[in-house]
Order: sequence, then C-alpha cells, then structure tokens
Amino acid sequence: MAKDMTLLWGSGSPPCWRVMIALEEKNLQGYNQKLLSFEKMDHKSQEVMAMNPRGQLPSFKHGNIIVNESFGACMYLESQFKSQGNKLIPDCAEEQGKMYQRLFEGNTLNQKMVDVIYYNYKVPENERLESAIKRNKESLAEEIKLWEGYLQGCCCLAGKNFTLADVIVYPAVAYLFRFGLSEERFPNLAKYYNCLKERPSVKATWPPHWLDNPKGQDTLKDL
Amino acid sequence: MAKDMTLLWGSGSPPCWRVMIALEEKNLQGYNQKLLSFEKMDHKSQEVMAMNPRGQLPSFKHGNIIVNESFGACMYLESQFKSQGNKLIPDCAEEQGKMYQRLFEGNTLNQKMVDVIYYNYKVPENERLESAIKRNKESLAEEIKLWEGYLQGCCCLAGKNFTLADVIVYPAVAYLFRFGLSEERFPNLAKYYNCLKERPSVKATWPPHWLDNPKGQDTLKDL
Repeated sequence: MAKDMTLLWGSGSPPCWRVMIALEEKNLQGYNQKLLSFEKMDHKSQEVMAMNPRGQLPSFKHGNIIVNESFGACMYLESQFKSQGNKLIPDCAEEQGKMYQRLFEGNTLNQKMVDVIYYNYKVPENERLESAIKRNKESLAEEIKLWEGYLQGCCCLAGKNFTLADVIVYPAVAYLFRFGLSEERFPNLAKYYNCLKERPSVKATWPPHWLDNPKGQDTLKDL
Repeated sequence: MAKDMTLLWGSGSPPCWRVMIALEEKNLQGYNQKLLSFEKMDHKSQEVMAMNPRGQLPSFKHGNIIVNESFGACMYLESQFKSQGNKLIPDCAEEQGKMYQRLFEGNTLNQKMVDVIYYNYKVPENERLESAIKRNKESLAEEIKLWEGYLQGCCCLAGKNFTLADVIVYPAVAYLFRFGLSEERFPNLAKYYNCLKERPSVKATWPPHWLDNPKGQDTLKDL
C-alpha cells in the first residue's frame, strides 16, 4: 500500500496516465488520489498550485518529495522501488539503449500531437493560420509513420519486454486513437494499442471518461 | 578510453553539449567524434541520417547501440558506467526526486528558449507575428524567473551535489547568457553559470566557436 503517496490527476491526460501506469507496474496501489477537471480549471486551483507551482497535472508527492514532471515521476518510482513489481529498465545494454531512445522520442510525439489537437487552445484566435494547422498535421503524420515503423514486428517499444518506454509512450498512442487515428492505416500502432489495452496496469488505469463515453473525437481521422 | 563510442556533434548545441559533459563526467574520453556544422546542413547529411534518421545532432553510438536523444544518452551513460567517474544520480530519495523534477523541467526551459531564439528559423516568413514573438518572450521570461528562484542559495539544481540535472540543464543556461541574458537581473543563474564554467567536464567541452568568438548575440538582453 502506497499510503504515503498522493496523485492529483485529470482523466485521459497522457502525463497523468503514465504515472498511474508506473504506480500499478510497481505494485503501488492504494495511494491517495484525486481526480480533477481540466475543464473546470482545477489545475490552477490552490490545491494544485501548492504542490505544483506550474499549475499542471499530474501533481505527485511521495512523503515530502514532490516529482510533478511525469517522465521524472516514472523514473523516480522505478528507481525507488527497483525490486518491487515489474522491472521497467532492462539490464541488457542493447535493450536499455533502445528504451532510452524511444522513451525520449516520445517527447516529440507528444509535442506534435498536442500541436495538432490543442491548436485552438494554445494559439490565440487572432493568430490562427490555416497554413500552420496544415503544417502541424503533416508533421504529426510524418512522426506517426516513424512509430508505425518502430513497431513493425515488435510487441513493445524496446523489443519483446514491456519497459519504461511503453509506460511513457503508450498513453500518447492511445490518445491518438481516441482522437480518431485510423487503425487501418496504422496497423502496427493499432496492434500495439489493442494488445496493451489488456495489460493489467493499463486496464486498471484506463481513463474513466473514456469508459463512460467510448466514442472519441475524429480530429485525426484523415491523418 | 572510449574507442567504441562515436559522437557526431555541433558546437554550442545544448543537446550535443550535455552528452559531451556526461561523457567527461563518466571518464569516457577518447571517443570518436566529429564536429559538424548546422549552417552547412551537415545534420541532414548521409553520414548523420545513417545513424539518426531524424537528421539531428547529437548522433551517438556505443558499439552498435544508438542513443541519439540527448537526455537518453546521458541516462544510458550513467546507467552503463555507474561506478566509473562521477556518480550523477544521487541515492538519497529526496535529492533524487528533486533531480528528476528539475531535469525534466529542463525540457520546458529548452522549448521556451528555442521558441524565442529560433523563431525565424521555425516559423515560415508569412506566418510570423509580432504578438506571438512578444508572447514567447514573456513566457520565456516567466520560465527563467522560476529557475532564478530554484537556484536561490543552491550551487546545483538538486542541492549541493552536481547531478544529471546539471549535466542536462547547464548547457541551456549557458546558452541563455550567450544570447545576451543579463547577469545583473538574474544573479542566481549568473552565479550558477559562472561557477560551473570552471568544472573540468564543462571546461573541457566548452563550445569551440564560443572560445574563438567570446562575444555572443544580444537577442535576450531585454528579458
């Protein structure tokens, strides 16, 4: 039981979700947690700001140790609970190198995804340009093609084992499909997405509002 | 001697520089290296693309293991050479948590810095807007204030010891000053910058074209 941990989170947010997957993988259930709403701007509330001056979710605390950055929280958990639950960083140098490479490429995938899906949220109305929207979409499509290639013949991002790269990147992949990415056009990504859906850590943390409303948006359907 | 390692790099690039600092810290000198030119578009050359299909520098290889993502390469080196050179990930949970927090916040600092310094490079001419330039500058100024606060009374980012957070974030801090950030207005950052300048790993890897031409630009002088 992880009674000395607290997680403030938002449903569906890839950064929140990856921390929740990491907690499950390390057998750290029973932590204090609170589901907050981005729509209601809870992430700018006093409760969040006290833990996370950037006003972002997740906000994560272990005792008095605060690690809000989601990649950081996952790495911290793996490091602090090395021999508990599933081992998420392989010893084998080759597999480990690939894991670090994919894990950090995940930043680029996230960034390009956010640039498309949250364009209107991020860019003030008077600055929005069709040409930028088009460029962002093309850039995301190119990025997704890379990942489609990476998953050719692989069940996980660093090879045959589930690693920290999957903990970190899987929520973004699920998000792409939630926003309408075509399973037909990206079969390797779709296989990866559907396969890991059944993994206990992923199943246990599936975004509750996706369960309530299984139909997502179609923002990315033409990609 | 690190004869089984190869680094393709560009002078001054924070991602390249952090890998070079990590190599020095782990006593991995004597690697194969090649200084390439971003201006000449060497990063899109066949030599780079063969190692790094994203066409980016650094491109880093250890034997047949390729880890081009700079954060990933630093973590890989620390993990593979744990007991060699300087220990870069503290054991103490508190210090480690802070290290991971700052290290990944470094992504935000980098991103906001790039959005300002490379605005014209990243945004096509017909899409450039004064309002966006202003907003990016304000956002970077806010970000830098956070880091100025983090360094209040601290010589390193995770406390009193030099860690992977410093390996990763220091080059960005140096870059800010190279681009004209005021040492007077940001005294904690300036102290950090000047202090670590003398650290052997930093000194040994100081960007050669900064040595040749100690005067930088003034892009950030009003920040």
